[in-house]
Amino acid sequence: MRNLTAENITDAVIEQFAGCDDARLKTLLNSLVTHLHAFLRDVEPTEAEWGQAIDFLTRTGQMCDDQRQEFILLSDTLGVTMLVDAINHRVTSPEVSESTVLGPFYVPDPPAAEQGQAIDGDVEGEPLFVEGRVHDEHGEPLAGVTIDVWQSDGEGFYDVQKEIEGASLRARFTTDDQGRYAFWTVTPSAYPIPSDGPVGQMLEATGRHPYRPAHVHFMLMAEGFETLVTQVFAEGDDYLDSDAVFGVKDSLVTEFRLQEPGRAPDGRVLDIPYRHLCYDFGLQPR
Amino acid sequence: MRNLTAENITDAVIEQFAGCDDARLKTLLNSLVTHLHAFLRDVEPTEAEWGQAIDFLTRTGQMCDDQRQEFILLSDTLGVTMLVDAINHRVTSPEVSESTVLGPFYVPDPPAAEQGQAIDGDVEGEPLFVEGRVHDEHGEPLAGVTIDVWQSDGEGFYDVQKEIEGASLRARFTTDDQGRYAFWTVTPSAYPIPSDGPVGQMLEATGRHPYRPAHVHFMLMAEGFETLVTQVFAEGDDYLDSDAVFGVKDSLVTEFRLQEPGRAPDGRVLDIPYRHLCYDFGLQPR
Ligand SMILES: [Fe+2]
Ligand SMILES: [Fe+2]
Repeated sequence: MRNLTAENITDAVIEQFAGCDDARLKTLLNSLVTHLHAFLRDVEPTEAEWGQAIDFLTRTGQMCDDQRQEFILLSDTLGVTMLVDAINHRVTSPEVSESTVLGPFYVPDPPAAEQGQAIDGDVEGEPLFVEGRVHDEHGEPLAGVTIDVWQSDGEGFYDVQKEIEGASLRARFTTDDQGRYAFWTVTPSAYPIPSDGPVGQMLEATGRHPYRPAHVHFMLMAEGFETLVTQVFAEGDDYLDSDAVFGVKDSLVTEFRLQEPGRAPDGRVLDIPYRHLCYDFGLQPR
Repeated sequence: MRNLTAENITDAVIEQFAGCDDARLKTLLNSLVTHLHAFLRDVEPTEAEWGQAIDFLTRTGQMCDDQRQEFILLSDTLGVTMLVDAINHRVTSPEVSESTVLGPFYVPDPPAAEQGQAIDGDVEGEPLFVEGRVHDEHGEPLAGVTIDVWQSDGEGFYDVQKEIEGASLRARFTTDDQGRYAFWTVTPSAYPIPSDGPVGQMLEATGRHPYRPAHVHFMLMAEGFETLVTQVFAEGDDYLDSDAVFGVKDSLVTEFRLQEPGRAPDGRVLDIPYRHLCYDFGLQPR
């Protein structure tokens, strides 16, 4: 293992992993080294470029804390997160809903809420009534499905990005015996992913914008079914065809329909216009 | 740019970089995305594995500070640093010395020292007399070449790893009118790269050791020549054929010859055994 050149160093590195007892880890590292070295032979970086890459990765790690995960943003903006999602969730039936990225703003175990409850607390914004049904791969309703929902406010901010205590615009619902869920909230807006770090600099340097089209996040969990992590996007949004994280699928786009003041589907009477989002989810058996 | 699948997402990401004004940056990112996605399609990571990779990269960045560069260690241990070195320093003449990795312990602008001076201060260890000549690609001596040297002590530690003030076992020499350099120091030992971080965990998990064979680092700078960053390794070291950072070349291995007590080549008289390292460097014209 001496006198390594651009031609033989890849084999030498792989040889050093030959003694790895964990077969899966060995496979992952051998493939990583093979593809990483192929990339370097392809672009032939200068030593200055290598130094810039080291610095970029270092700053990306140093940007991470409890509230910020810059490496997930990097994965998202390079299409890696969606590729991993696509590899792990190949939809095989039109009755089953498509998945998309989890995103960095999910908080496990949100507060439980009742059917039809409002989750917007004292957040100002255009009212939005969300409802739908959850069914299995044959279209049969599923009762008792846990649905976590989370979303930005009308200015594009999640609760964890704001200086507030506790959960806001996030909750956990359970489907009723007909598979139904329903809640009131405010209409979310398109928003930029956090762009004041290395990932934002990468987007800026390459002429890309950081925006995502308006959406509501859903995570559905039921015994015997694959957990579904997905988002429902607002039809007509400017960013549907240039989502910074490559997460939009046609089957997940639907109208957040503007309604005149009056009686909403759940009987509530509004004296201002509101929106109505109706979306049914199909779960994949495990 | 909707409905992206494992098959078409790579093209969609590359398309988003189409507006990048910096042609080199565009080339780098397009190639990165192509090879990174090929790696992921190759190994088909689970979402848990993706999460472990995000966590590993995050911890690697967070380990970095003024004294520690964990991403360089990662680059070193995956053979990336030596590959970049090989790409940038293809030796074309047997009169020109081979390069190897800079390593994480170089400190720019070390203290200037006189020909023949000792650089070991009050570091204990086996004395080592180092000398040689610097020549051009035709073997003609080069006067006035700046030579930075740095090395570990006999326990394998660099000054920056120890709780001491100021430089120790590092200095800057200038070749005389016959291209000569010479200094006294202590014999360095094999040492482990810092292994108390994520890179050490990777080595441990894959059954690799963190050791490098004993060596002295040299950086040679002269007007009109490529800067040479290299190391001279001790013949007979246990780790010559398994250097954790893949840096050994036969042309850089030489005997640190053990000598009986007595008069050294520079006239100094020693009453204990010492070692003698003699190495000539050839520089590549710019
Ligand atoms: Fe979101
Ligand atoms: Fe070293």
